[in-house]
Amino acid sequence: MDLERSPLALPFPDMPAIDGVTLRVSNARYKNWDRADLTFAELAEGTAVAGVFTQSACASSEVEMGREQVRSGRARALIVNAGNSNAFTGYRGREAVEQIMAQVAEGIGCAPGEVFVSSTGVIGVPLPKDKARDGVAKALAAEPCGWEDAARAIGTTDTFTKGATSSAVVGGKTVTLCGIIKGSGMIAPDMATMLGYIFTDAAVDPAFLQQLLSTANRQTFSCITVDGDTSTSDTVLAFATGRAGNAPLASFDDAGADAFAAALTDVCRQLAQLVVRDGEGASKFITIRMSGAASDESAHRVGLSIANSPLVKTAIAGEDANWGRVVMAVGKAGEPADRDKLSIAFGGIWAARNGLPVEDYDEAPVAAHLKGSDIDIAVDLGVGEGRATVWTCDLTHGYISINADYRS
Amino acid sequence: MDLERSPLALPFPDMPAIDGVTLRVSNARYKNWDRADLTFAELAEGTAVAGVFTQSACASSEVEMGREQVRSGRARALIVNAGNSNAFTGYRGREAVEQIMAQVAEGIGCAPGEVFVSSTGVIGVPLPKDKARDGVAKALAAEPCGWEDAARAIGTTDTFTKGATSSAVVGGKTVTLCGIIKGSGMIAPDMATMLGYIFTDAAVDPAFLQQLLSTANRQTFSCITVDGDTSTSDTVLAFATGRAGNAPLASFDDAGADAFAAALTDVCRQLAQLVVRDGEGASKFITIRMSGAASDESAHRVGLSIANSPLVKTAIAGEDANWGRVVMAVGKAGEPADRDKLSIAFGGIWAARNGLPVEDYDEAPVAAHLKGSDIDIAVDLGVGEGRATVWTCDLTHGYISINADYRS
Repeated sequence: MDLERSPLALPFPDMPAIDGVTLRVSNARYKNWDRADLTFAELAEGTAVAGVFTQSACASSEVEMGREQVRSGRARALIVNAGNSNAFTGYRGREAVEQIMAQVAEGIGCAPGEVFVSSTGVIGVPLPKDKARDGVAKALAAEPCGWEDAARAIGTTDTFTKGATSSAVVGGKTVTLCGIIKGSGMIAPDMATMLGYIFTDAAVDPAFLQQLLSTANRQTFSCITVDGDTSTSDTVLAFATGRAGNAPLASFDDAGADAFAAALTDVCRQLAQLVVRDGEGASKFITIRMSGAASDESAHRVGLSIANSPLVKTAIAGEDANWGRVVMAVGKAGEPADRDKLSIAFGGIWAARNGLPVEDYDEAPVAAHLKGSDIDIAVDLGVGEGRATVWTCDLTHGYISINADYRS
Repeated sequence: MDLERSPLALPFPDMPAIDGVTLRVSNARYKNWDRADLTFAELAEGTAVAGVFTQSACASSEVEMGREQVRSGRARALIVNAGNSNAFTGYRGREAVEQIMAQVAEGIGCAPGEVFVSSTGVIGVPLPKDKARDGVAKALAAEPCGWEDAARAIGTTDTFTKGATSSAVVGGKTVTLCGIIKGSGMIAPDMATMLGYIFTDAAVDPAFLQQLLSTANRQTFSCITVDGDTSTSDTVLAFATGRAGNAPLASFDDAGADAFAAALTDVCRQLAQLVVRDGEGASKFITIRMSGAASDESAHRVGLSIANSPLVKTAIAGEDANWGRVVMAVGKAGEPADRDKLSIAFGGIWAARNGLPVEDYDEAPVAAHLKGSDIDIAVDLGVGEGRATVWTCDLTHGYISINADYRS
């Protein structure tokens, strides 16, 4: 199925090389794609790694093994297979991952446990070992490539390549961060059919890198949803090669730690929003700003209830400022709320205040705002100080077309 | 918007009159509909009432007042307004309900608290008092009508009229139950934009009627979902006139109590399934049978996670036995599950057993099953003895068309 480029797509940014990261791609032909579908990132010795993974109870072998591997804190390589998720394939799936780890380890001279593997695509079909072996062999021998080639190779139903970059000054040294991501459906917090990889030349202690990535994840990847569905394979990994030569960051007491944390969160937020912009069938990028909730966590949950509501998402698709559906989605969230304290705005214009429609509400500027591609919904629950922002997209005929017809 | 009759519609059944129940309808013209939109059921003196209501934190005035009124256990009248939900309208909404209660109470000679009011339709527009007053006056004076007229008058986006009947022998007397219901979207447990009314000539103590209705609700209305959205107005009321002359049922120790409970649950299940059959845009009626869960409650939650998954629902719309998406929906439910014990069947044929695709799996009969209109999915989690059955429909272009365009 050829998918049209999302109308919300952004151009792939200029992204600098990261010292200590070499990217290569090959075509393992997991599906009958003519493009590369296997991505290999070789990482300098001493690279620190951190990861966050799906909370699915039916996670793939790749996720189970990745969770174990990050504990060591060290990585030398990443392999990403696109077209087959290798999920729900039992021992055969695990054997395929172990084969890849051993082959790459032998190829570059490292321990198998330092080779991280992700796979994305159809569930329930064991990753074919012969195709994986050939693909890895070709990738090991391939010429290095750039970020956009890698971003393209990790994609499945993605309609555009997604990358983000940022930098920070750490102890007088400029460190660079570059990230690529894939994902466009089965996207919900914790996290999504979302594979994201962030590379930096900063020197960061693995435990601190994990702390920073987990925090950034809560504010970014966990705040997006396309369809409320959560993949069995979701993975975000951060790799820090240390080649920038800064004094290693090990805590927030270290100079530059705050700046690095901000840059990491910035890259994660950019990547997370790009996934929403490629949401299956999306025609509108929706920002939902929650305030006045009982707590930040409560604000987050109510925001996701709104963001996941098919009735809210179809209303936005129809460019209809149907704030009644927002009331509905607040009401069903199971969080503290009071009908008579609730206020709702579209594009900065309040349609309802303290539980009543605004008397002199002028729908014309709201209607104009809804015709745009970036929609802003503000909801104040009026019961506390909790805040959160979540991002989602609308629900359109495109989503149905893509998903009623994906596997067959 | 004219909606096509659901392909899953069933004919309206022959339903007998219930002694002590008189139905009338009128046209209050809440919208510019030519058909009746106000329904009035007059109930004999001594009628017992029980109710279950939405768990929305933003419930309508009708729901708030109804919750209070059922505590008295007695009802003399029901008014249902269609086209305007009167939800999120603050004190003005409440005043409109109080006006209706007073007008009906004066008209038939009862206390205002014995008049139950429901409203369904657009949120955020106060029910116009003048239209309500005229509509009630007309209804009080109208000729009695039949069940299907009433079922039609309570509908909004419904594409067919929905009714169900059953009977039981209680202490040598045959008692009859008749129910009508409306609802087709914003349907999720606890409960939905669903207004359901069950009438019986049985004599039942109000507290026992409440116990029976709450139990039936958990097994029926709480087991359906169309889109996971929950209305601010959901209401199911049961009225027992006592005119059958049986010795009043007050506990399960009374002869015939089990038979009456079974008949009530039967009517509730029929009505609940009819709502799913009118699910917005539905082309397939889906039964999800859960077993092997840690508990019945856990089975129910996992079943709803599957039933609410847009990816599962679009796969069924596409007649695709994509059991990988079922694995995904099990995994995201947050309930005890083990990837390697999970089994999934479509139409009674196991596609996956104990965490692995079935080796000699023949997709041909499964594909034939999926071409039908009634789809059966069985999921065994393999971790316990918990069971549940839930019902839903597929997610199609029709849902998008209806909901991207409802208010405007």
